Amino acid sequence: MSDALRDLLDGRWATLRREAVELLAKLEPTPADLDREQYRAWVLEQLHVLAAGGHSLVAFPAEHGGRDDVGGSVVAFEVLGFGDLSLMVKAGVQWGLFGGAVQALGTRAHHDELLPAIMGLELPGCFAMTESGHGSDVQRLRTTATYDPATQEFVVHTPDRSARKDYIGNAARDGRLAVVFAQLVTGGGAHGVHALLVPIRDASGAPMPGVSIEDCGRKAGLNGVDNGRLAFDHVRVPRAALLDRYGAVSPEGVYTSPVEGDGRRFFTMLGTLVRGRISVAGGAGSATKRALTIAVRYGLARRQFTRPDSGEEVVVLDYLAHQRRLLPALATTYALHFAQEELVSALHDVADDRGQRELESRAAGLKAVATWHATATIQTCREACGGAGYLAENLLADLKADTDVFTTFEGDNTVLLQLVAKGLLTSYRDHVGDLDPWGLARFAADQFVGVVIERTAARAIVDRLVKGGSDALLDRGWQLRQFEDRERHVVEGLARRLRRATADDAFDVFNAAQDHLLHAARVHVDRVVLEAFVAAVDRCRDEATAALLGRVCDLYALSTIEADRAWFLEHGRLTPARAKAVTQAVNGLCGALRPHARRLVDAFGVPESRLTAPILG
Amino acid sequence: MSDALRDLLDGRWATLRREAVELLAKLEPTPADLDREQYRAWVLEQLHVLAAGGHSLVAFPAEHGGRDDVGGSVVAFEVLGFGDLSLMVKAGVQWGLFGGAVQALGTRAHHDELLPAIMGLELPGCFAMTESGHGSDVQRLRTTATYDPATQEFVVHTPDRSARKDYIGNAARDGRLAVVFAQLVTGGGAHGVHALLVPIRDASGAPMPGVSIEDCGRKAGLNGVDNGRLAFDHVRVPRAALLDRYGAVSPEGVYTSPVEGDGRRFFTMLGTLVRGRISVAGGAGSATKRALTIAVRYGLARRQFTRPDSGEEVVVLDYLAHQRRLLPALATTYALHFAQEELVSALHDVADDRGQRELESRAAGLKAVATWHATATIQTCREACGGAGYLAENLLADLKADTDVFTTFEGDNTVLLQLVAKGLLTSYRDHVGDLDPWGLARFAADQFVGVVIERTAARAIVDRLVKGGSDALLDRGWQLRQFEDRERHVVEGLARRLRRATADDAFDVFNAAQDHLLHAARVHVDRVVLEAFVAAVDRCRDEATAALLGRVCDLYALSTIEADRAWFLEHGRLTPARAKAVTQAVNGLCGALRPHARRLVDAFGVPESRLTAPILG
Ligand SMILES: Cc1cc2nc3c(=O)[nH]c(=O)nc-3n(C[C@H](O)[C@H](O)[C@H](O)COP(=O)(O)OP(=O)(O)OC[C@H]3O[C@@H](n4cnc5c(N)ncnc54)[C@H](O)[C@@H]3O)c2cc1C
Ligand SMILES: Cc1cc2nc3c(=O)[nH]c(=O)nc-3n(C[C@H](O)[C@H](O)[C@H](O)COP(=O)(O)OP(=O)(O)OC[C@H]3O[C@@H](n4cnc5c(N)ncnc54)[C@H](O)[C@@H]3O)c2cc1C
Repeated sequence: MSDALRDLLDGRWATLRREAVELLAKLEPTPADLDREQYRAWVLEQLHVLAAGGHSLVAFPAEHGGRDDVGGSVVAFEVLGFGDLSLMVKAGVQWGLFGGAVQALGTRAHHDELLPAIMGLELPGCFAMTESGHGSDVQRLRTTATYDPATQEFVVHTPDRSARKDYIGNAARDGRLAVVFAQLVTGGGAHGVHALLVPIRDASGAPMPGVSIEDCGRKAGLNGVDNGRLAFDHVRVPRAALLDRYGAVSPEGVYTSPVEGDGRRFFTMLGTLVRGRISVAGGAGSATKRALTIAVRYGLARRQFTRPDSGEEVVVLDYLAHQRRLLPALATTYALHFAQEELVSALHDVADDRGQRELESRAAGLKAVATWHATATIQTCREACGGAGYLAENLLADLKADTDVFTTFEGDNTVLLQLVAKGLLTSYRDHVGDLDPWGLARFAADQFVGVVIERTAARAIVDRLVKGGSDALLDRGWQLRQFEDRERHVVEGLARRLRRATADDAFDVFNAAQDHLLHAARVHVDRVVLEAFVAAVDRCRDEATAALLGRVCDLYALSTIEADRAWFLEHGRLTPARAKAVTQAVNGLCGALRPHARRLVDAFGVPESRLTAPILG
Repeated sequence: MSDALRDLLDGRWATLRREAVELLAKLEPTPADLDREQYRAWVLEQLHVLAAGGHSLVAFPAEHGGRDDVGGSVVAFEVLGFGDLSLMVKAGVQWGLFGGAVQALGTRAHHDELLPAIMGLELPGCFAMTESGHGSDVQRLRTTATYDPATQEFVVHTPDRSARKDYIGNAARDGRLAVVFAQLVTGGGAHGVHALLVPIRDASGAPMPGVSIEDCGRKAGLNGVDNGRLAFDHVRVPRAALLDRYGAVSPEGVYTSPVEGDGRRFFTMLGTLVRGRISVAGGAGSATKRALTIAVRYGLARRQFTRPDSGEEVVVLDYLAHQRRLLPALATTYALHFAQEELVSALHDVADDRGQRELESRAAGLKAVATWHATATIQTCREACGGAGYLAENLLADLKADTDVFTTFEGDNTVLLQLVAKGLLTSYRDHVGDLDPWGLARFAADQFVGVVIERTAARAIVDRLVKGGSDALLDRGWQLRQFEDRERHVVEGLARRLRRATADDAFDVFNAAQDHLLHAARVHVDRVVLEAFVAAVDRCRDEATAALLGRVCDLYALSTIEADRAWFLEHGRLTPARAKAVTQAVNGLCGALRPHARRLVDAFGVPESRLTAPILG
């Protein structure tokens, strides 16, 4: 039975996933008690093992020796999430962010020159977007790249401390070349943010002239990654350093671009980097699975307090409170897994502009929800393991510390959910990053005709379930209807509120509705996630497995409703009696799934070599 | 204005609190980048500075050179919570747990011999209760201390690995003597858990014969504390090693005790150690205050995204979402501060057995709620500071890691809340630790006549408010009635459920109601906390300050109701319209308090020397 489950979880990239697990097995587990410098050196060494093992080929074009498998590259990254997370993040910086930017924003010459060395790790590099002063609002970066036609060079410059590039992975120790995001200026004026290649260290590892590098020092976690700060003092790079797919400067200094408008162009450029966000969601999922595997297995082994009737000590996962801490989180982890796989498929297959915008919105939403789920669940797992959970040897300490920043990097979650809500309000008609509150209010007023629930996967099965069925809490159709109805109501209510805005008070009206906006995004993501889960259950050909998975799906659906049951009560969707019944049903499902807990975590396929916690015996 | 606020917060032990802050100023801030061994050495050094500065005198009896100020000792510990938390915990182990156990469980001879050296830190020691196999259920510890009348010695023995003492502070490096909890056995039989003094290291620092010591190694945080494991191989200690206040063994091996019943005796002994739990609640409060001070001040300085109407970048604390993350947490921190002060007063003044049991229950409840609040709030503060919050230099990383275990040690929170609920069901008539589910069910059936809401502080003012007033959300009487009514209803409902249990199914009935039990405990603590806040507002003589504090109290009350509004809706206490109005009122209060945010965190009095985060400029 657990094999059918495992197969289902392995999904579309099953072969690649298994290959990646084999490669992971070739890596060392993180040695204990390295100091920061040693840890960084070890991570770099392991990164070379990954490169040698072909990890970095997956994402890149076949013509440069790659495997041209975008979706697969996210899956391979996810698998790294079972192991050392500094290594995963460093791989993400090198091949996902740095290599990905060269690939997506550069053109032929850049690819030919750089991609092979990037893949092979002969050229370690950085993705230098964030500045001390601007992280979420990257459109207002203040580093400048000014074209000098006299020498046909760009002059890259950091005007002041708040314009330093900050938190940049690979910058403090290993990076040679950086993709630097800067305001592009030519004689013709300013053209918004563009990316340029700027060498930051020479072959000996010394900073290049005009480049100053600082170390961000110790962090809460991910201390195997060398994050640093970069500042540029009128650093000159050749004209060819501009990654010019979306904007080019002629030798004479004439700027041209295939995309109209600085804002739209910038968000188009950002959009091509969406894979990073999807990767973080996947990495968060893997870390969550590993934490849950530890906590559930310990919960099944640990006994505390005696049953007076039998005199036996009670297995802690037999306590309702313990089940409630771990099993709904387990169910949600399943749900997010299937949603993630669907998202990766969408990334792999995306075909048009609107699809791209929907993908970006979905990536933002899932990244936010998956990383907050990781933060909360890993915290719970630590607590569920009592004092043992606090010892580094039992792995949860590092899982917590390393993943803590996932809610922040690759887009702050609170900011991302606002993008999602804006996407809903505009039905993905344009790049929402570029819409200010007043623009959005007009959208809501003029163009928004009501929420169209756009089914994601398995449209047919969801349609059928939504239409049929009973009103029982365990009826899948009822569950789907609740999620769908909630989304429609919350988003429409939001549109109504925002429509009242005028040009003068648009910001304030939006700000007063910010909690509503965030709720709209959340309930939308919840619905998308539930549909992905429903589709997965439907795909499952093994009957017993499908039945088990159905219960897990029930637990996801009902615990999600339970958590927001105040909304359902406030809006007359649940009577008080029925709301209480939801709570009872969640308790019942916890009890029903308790005997399957081990099987359910085993199916995640976390390699035993990454489960070396002594508490697992 | 902020002085009146500061005075109110400083409270009954204001003088001592200020002294303690001065002493804290004499300590070094934690040096960056120490390795574990250096960090431990540094903490020990600072502990000597504390001892020299008189910190350790506060708690101990005047006749041994102390200041006899139990309440004050908790306040002094709280102040340490503004600084390095390894140091705070190490101080707590040495003087609170180890010294406290000698004082509370020992008799004259022990005090005369040991207390001066404990206070002066000439004798570093351990409190060795927890075993690998038993943490929450300490009544079932398996270390034995068997009396040998032939030599008039106790033989202390660890039967197997699961009976090792585990996680013991001061054990891995510095401790010389340990208070070891063990099952006491004499010729007359077994007498339950007692505490004995067992030397674990000689003057040179080498383990004593028969004692093996292991290092717990790296932990998520608190790495300046040397936690270790102790095992005893038939270690002999003299008869006088038994801390014999609650149970003594004559030279011939005859056991006597002033307390009947092994269980009751053990819980009486544990009860005398309640100060440790109260201290952790206080330490959690200080860490929370420090985190909030950082996050609020950064929130007031950080700008991100532009207001389209003015073109100015927006201060992030002007975003509703940011206010909602920080300001209700700030209000709750105020509420818990006042509840903590009341608890410390109760500890200081406790006069009788019932008072003692109520104190233990309140300590358990407040410890659980305060430490979970710390965990959640510090997490939020980290996220609210974006990428900067992840860097160690900005202090939140260590605050998070160090406090993470507060929910576990000094009693696992989930276990503690169950004690609280049991106390409510029995109206503190007996030591609940010793009551099994069936015993409790009988209590609920026979003796429980309904919840008597026992007012804590300012009985008169609360009574008056509860009786008067309107039904407006901002009416204090209405708020108090909501908390009170919820507690009564939840606890009575619980009693009704449990009453149905029979001897055969008592465990299962209890287990099925475990979520209800935990909820009962929570809502009880909420009510006690609100009353403490109300009493504090009432004490405030400065009118403007009282008005401000009143708004903070509103925010505490309404955000607490909002978080549990599903319950109020399910039980017909709030209509849907009114529940939505609660949410709007919380938003409104956030906006109203936003201009006072700086003043409110400043009043916490975290010394500037402990706010060296570069993001604070
Ligand atoms: C370990 C680490 C590695 C990193 N690696 C890289 C890298 O390799 N390359 C790179 O370019 N960057 C990197 N970053 C930077 C990262 O992407 C940014 O930290 C992130 O984008 C957030 O930006 P910020 O820190 O400036 O936070 P801010 O944008 O200043 O946000 C601060 C707080 O304000 C809130 N806030 C902001 N705007 C709003 C709003 N409109 N409404 C409500 N709330 C709001 C946010 O929720 C957040 O809590 C890294 C960061 C870290 C910590
Ligand atoms: C850093 C650190 C320092 C420490 N210092 C000391 C010290 O100096 N001296 C000392 O004696 N001890 C010390 N301890 C031990 C600490 O007090 C214990 O870890 C704590 O009491 C919890 O016990 P446990 O770890 O055995 O968890 P367990 O009791 O095994 O609990 C494990 C999990 O099961 C759950 N659980 C248990 N029972 C129930 C139930 N009935 N219902 C529902 N859920 C349940 C708990 O909530 C928890 O999540 C320290 C621990 C740490 C981590």
